[in-house]
Amino acid sequence: MSKGLFISLEGGEGAGKTTQARLLCEALAASGRAVVSVREPGGTRLGEQARRILKDEDEEPPTPRAELLLFLAARAQLVDNVIRPALAEGKCVVSDRFSDSTFAYQGYARGLPLDAIKAANDFACGGLRPDVTFLLDLGAQAAASRVASRGAQDRFEREDAGFHKRLADGFAARAAAEPDRFIKIDAGAPVETVAEEIWKSLKRFL
Amino acid sequence: MSKGLFISLEGGEGAGKTTQARLLCEALAASGRAVVSVREPGGTRLGEQARRILKDEDEEPPTPRAELLLFLAARAQLVDNVIRPALAEGKCVVSDRFSDSTFAYQGYARGLPLDAIKAANDFACGGLRPDVTFLLDLGAQAAASRVASRGAQDRFEREDAGFHKRLADGFAARAAAEPDRFIKIDAGAPVETVAEEIWKSLKRFL
Repeated sequence: MSKGLFISLEGGEGAGKTTQARLLCEALAASGRAVVSVREPGGTRLGEQARRILKDEDEEPPTPRAELLLFLAARAQLVDNVIRPALAEGKCVVSDRFSDSTFAYQGYARGLPLDAIKAANDFACGGLRPDVTFLLDLGAQAAASRVASRGAQDRFEREDAGFHKRLADGFAARAAAEPDRFIKIDAGAPVETVAEEIWKSLKRFL
Repeated sequence: MSKGLFISLEGGEGAGKTTQARLLCEALAASGRAVVSVREPGGTRLGEQARRILKDEDEEPPTPRAELLLFLAARAQLVDNVIRPALAEGKCVVSDRFSDSTFAYQGYARGLPLDAIKAANDFACGGLRPDVTFLLDLGAQAAASRVASRGAQDRFEREDAGFHKRLADGFAARAAAEPDRFIKIDAGAPVETVAEEIWKSLKRFL
């Protein structure tokens, strides 16, 4: 059975993950590879419904534990119904966020215990991990100004500076713990430069 | 700090939990107690949204793991925002289903590993357990005919006989493991008789 390549893009708000995921998919497709593009939470009907609940500006926002479990429900559905089948067919899967965001957001930034997150996340993914993860790294100030310029902000984007600092620390800790899987990219560079960096770094995995 | 009483009603489809939960709430209120009535999944805005996803007749139903995690997300929100605050105020909380349903449905009936369910459920509840659980016990045939007579059936009600058998075995195993918490009630009796049985058995907890 052929085995595809599972690529995730990670980073805080405003780092350009969505744009870079799109460009990466285009480059992979242009090189003749079959590509499946997903985003988290989302990528399935259940996942998109969970996404609406998670991003919703409700009077009663999800508690940290409910938030974690909703993200993981969306991930379980995505892994079982989309990612694993695509990888089994030898396709490249590009995911706009994956497990590392859970550790950074719900663990480092919200303060849920990392060992409980690991256990629940391993269960949700059935142990699946990306083959390579691009961490789009952007200074806190640049990130804040990008997010502000977008206008409409969701529940996560509007968290305070302390939250975004803990988030960045969380991603840095994840990257430090698994240097073979992570590739750090300077997300402050122009969009095309970032895309070229990613493509160049990906070559050794293809 | 006063401490309320947490009561759950459990059992398979068609056992009469919803009716008995309502009658129990009325009896508790009539006896002068403050009562909070909840149902699972549900009881919060997030929980009702999760309920719709779970009961939805979708072309792409939740995978067993996604289903479990959605139930637990709803439970986490309910425990943190409704059940714990009510118990802390000394109220009685009556829940139409709680953790035992998760073990019976997603564990015994769907086949997810019980130890993984236990870990994830303990995390979702922060360890909270009912003080007393009424297991409404109904023979498989009686249950099937009650469910059929209701007309519209959801995803769970329409599972096959093997599913409902494993479910009943699951509830029985849960009750056998915690005889001090569980009270088995013959749900085949008339509604008023069942309600009286529950009320009589509850007295020693009040």
